[in-house]
Amino acid sequence: MTDDAAPAADSPAPSLELAGLKLAELRASIDNIDAALVHLLAERFKFTQQVGHLKAEAGLPPADLEREAQQIGRLRALATASGLDPVFAEKFLGFIVAEVIHHHEVIAEAR
Amino acid sequence: MTDDAAPAADSPAPSLELAGLKLAELRASIDNIDAALVHLLAERFKFTQQVGHLKAEAGLPPADLEREAQQIGRLRALATASGLDPVFAEKFLGFIVAEVIHHHEVIAEAR
Repeated sequence: MTDDAAPAADSPAPSLELAGLKLAELRASIDNIDAALVHLLAERFKFTQQVGHLKAEAGLPPADLEREAQQIGRLRALATASGLDPVFAEKFLGFIVAEVIHHHEVIAEAR
Repeated sequence: MTDDAAPAADSPAPSLELAGLKLAELRASIDNIDAALVHLLAERFKFTQQVGHLKAEAGLPPADLEREAQQIGRLRALATASGLDPVFAEKFLGFIVAEVIHHHEVIAEAR
């Protein structure tokens, strides 16, 4: 039996080199997805800014617990269907909504 | 001058009714974006799970500060170009990466 795990002194082991190539490939896909996520988030905040102005004009409160409960249920179901951890999906929505409510408060205070 | 801000006693003021319709329209767009975000996140975690297994096989550490610094710089630039707050984009990446590193640690510990 040969010891094929032993690296050569002057170059990385073939398996490590292959791992590096595969890692670069996976990271390129992750970078593409991240660009898509950033662009979608930019559009999402445009819509929520409109919601903020609308709520401020109509005198509605920035937070809406009923709407948030609906969103949580829907996103958890979509997460389960698409193979995403529903607990993470809920945390993710909470992270975004916290930012949105902060924006809405700024809009309401500026009026 | 008429007082057109005064609501009728038995129905919402026309402006409030219009605001409700517009709000429902904006929320439908936000819901579409959220579904897209959830599906992209599901795909992103599939890729990072592959990265986790690859790193564990190659004996690489779960976190990679150089890679993270590159991602932050790139996402901040994409955020600025697309009208998203770059500070938020960086917080968003931190939120995702914390979850990814947790997954990688679970993968490494399970081996």
